[in-house]
Amino acid sequence: MNSYEKLTNAVVTSNSLLCVGLDSDIARMPESIEKNMDGILDFNIRIIEATAAYTAAYKINFAFYEQYGTPGFEILKKTIETVPTDKFIIADAKRGDIGNTSKSYAKSAFEYFNADALTVNPYMGSDSLKPFLEYEDKMIFILALTSNPGSADFQHLISDGEPLYINVIKKTSTYGNKNNSGYVVGATHPEELSRIREIIPEHFLLIPGIGTQGGDAKSILQANGDKPAIINVSRDIIYQSSLDIFAEAAAGRAKYYQELFNE
Amino acid sequence: MNSYEKLTNAVVTSNSLLCVGLDSDIARMPESIEKNMDGILDFNIRIIEATAAYTAAYKINFAFYEQYGTPGFEILKKTIETVPTDKFIIADAKRGDIGNTSKSYAKSAFEYFNADALTVNPYMGSDSLKPFLEYEDKMIFILALTSNPGSADFQHLISDGEPLYINVIKKTSTYGNKNNSGYVVGATHPEELSRIREIIPEHFLLIPGIGTQGGDAKSILQANGDKPAIINVSRDIIYQSSLDIFAEAAAGRAKYYQELFNE
Repeated sequence: MNSYEKLTNAVVTSNSLLCVGLDSDIARMPESIEKNMDGILDFNIRIIEATAAYTAAYKINFAFYEQYGTPGFEILKKTIETVPTDKFIIADAKRGDIGNTSKSYAKSAFEYFNADALTVNPYMGSDSLKPFLEYEDKMIFILALTSNPGSADFQHLISDGEPLYINVIKKTSTYGNKNNSGYVVGATHPEELSRIREIIPEHFLLIPGIGTQGGDAKSILQANGDKPAIINVSRDIIYQSSLDIFAEAAAGRAKYYQELFNE
Repeated sequence: MNSYEKLTNAVVTSNSLLCVGLDSDIARMPESIEKNMDGILDFNIRIIEATAAYTAAYKINFAFYEQYGTPGFEILKKTIETVPTDKFIIADAKRGDIGNTSKSYAKSAFEYFNADALTVNPYMGSDSLKPFLEYEDKMIFILALTSNPGSADFQHLISDGEPLYINVIKKTSTYGNKNNSGYVVGATHPEELSRIREIIPEHFLLIPGIGTQGGDAKSILQANGDKPAIINVSRDIIYQSSLDIFAEAAAGRAKYYQELFNE
């Protein structure tokens, strides 16, 4: 089963377009959680258990673990090991380097951490992305139009009549196919989605930016229609409560998003 | 002392523009080195000891350590700890994410690993870079025009009469200053350097692509003149010999580049 099939199955089985982002930060742990590495792992395990019924995927943002160095990487790996095997796991690390080096990043994400997919940065072009595509059963999500304010700085620069993010999608979609590549398109850009979907109607989109970042779920889903997509929510689910009931609160919020996205 | 001063001092004291890249890979260890994590650490320590007299800086490519997961990160940290304190340390990790997340990457590179500088990817724009600049005594090297073949795919796209890498330099050079930012410009692009130096005459350049990648040192240094720059060489130094004398061979090759760059 390739990653496209695994993600499709995960969406169908959970009846959910939701991806829960585990941006777990020691400074934001609930009161009852120890403020150390064991605490973060305990928090992640309880969030995963509580939300699994409402989500197709989990996205692990590497930065939040790398900030603690080696012990952080240890709990990142352990967190991934506790995710139920039918859920899709996205290593959100935004990697990319010259070919020789990207091979090592691919080995890290796909072999050591055993993620189903990895987010990658297209700035360095074809040889920086192709080593990831050699893993036939894995997927990359290529940054196209990101959800943050800085996305306006370069991603909208017009060349040959199209913005950079469209030029990125046009060219990189020739490197692989829908089975091994998808795109990151922020929920903050519903008006740009129809042009994107003309070029890549079949690829999965990973849509961040709902919740804390202010993107509107209804607008982006209307623009996307019934094409393959998952929508990430991180902070607004995992930090829904700082009390003892944080896991139940996260489950409630995940269920809310599951239903909202199915409307 | 800020990073600009530290790097300037390191160049002057070593009388060298060289940066040695520790792209240490288990598959390429010399015969006498154990093929495990302890072996890589031993290799790095001996390469650092042997080459220190001829180099201003060391660049640690995170991918080569991440591929081994947690144990790889452990030796990455230990390697950095063995670098003499007057040498400049570049964490070559090409990070970048939304502001909230870049903060954590900055904490990892600058606080946990204690690097002097970090390579970053500009694709996500201003808020993805600014958290790194809040560390006043540290530096970022922003990817502008990279040394690999894929640099032609997007970095040369023309908008407003200038290629993307020039638009990146123009805009990002307003975020910080020469003390906290520099640029990555591949040695494979000497003909583009004069335009780059018109815009940023004072910023440090980190120039990769000499040696295995085919860039010509003489051409790039002539184009750069006497402006601040360091030139990275990785594989052609550290893998100069697979015999017992690998450290001496690396030292000899480092000395060769020191002299070549001073001609």
